[in-house]
Amino acid sequence: MLPDRLSATFAALADPTRRAILARLILGETSVTKLAEPFDMSLPAISKHLKVLERAGLITRGRQAQWRPCRIEPSALRRVDDWLEGYRRMWDERFDRLERYLGELQAKEKPHGRKK
Amino acid sequence: MLPDRLSATFAALADPTRRAILARLILGETSVTKLAEPFDMSLPAISKHLKVLERAGLITRGRQAQWRPCRIEPSALRRVDDWLEGYRRMWDERFDRLERYLGELQAKEKPHGRKK
Repeated sequence: MLPDRLSATFAALADPTRRAILARLILGETSVTKLAEPFDMSLPAISKHLKVLERAGLITRGRQAQWRPCRIEPSALRRVDDWLEGYRRMWDERFDRLERYLGELQAKEKPHGRKK
Repeated sequence: MLPDRLSATFAALADPTRRAILARLILGETSVTKLAEPFDMSLPAISKHLKVLERAGLITRGRQAQWRPCRIEPSALRRVDDWLEGYRRMWDERFDRLERYLGELQAKEKPHGRKK
């Protein structure tokens, strides 16, 4: 069975080298050789990582035979962002509750103080 | 070498059953038996998924011997959210550029029209 798209994206992101490659690609499209420069890795090793990123839809590659520039593809990351949305609401609510609670504590501590 | 924390989180999220378990836990803490109900899976299989989520810091479990309720732990997801922040800026900028471009196209198409 093929893994679902979101699982493939998360699996691709579960590697620091692949995340570093994505971070480099925010600056703009570039070649595999340029991408490989900051890493202590062989070109085939980098190419393997790029294939994982490409299959997960996180990058696309140009079709020129000699120079196949890598480009970041935001849509896969947006899917991660959309998935996070439900959870973000959860921690925002928790934070609001905590803030209310702290407000109440402060009000109790300074019963005669002025409201700010 | 131990994988870094963010990689462990992404790896744990790269599975639809584990994401479904997290989605259930948004509603509140619950037991393994209750968690297993909607899945066509054995308790040991569910427990294995829970261990992966726990190791990745995505859930915590109560310490009572008989009933170890699972609870979602938002901090790991917030780290994913923080990581996404740099990319979110990128697609917001792209969207702004696209919007400006569309605005310019519309302005060209209606050179004598009124501005809305």
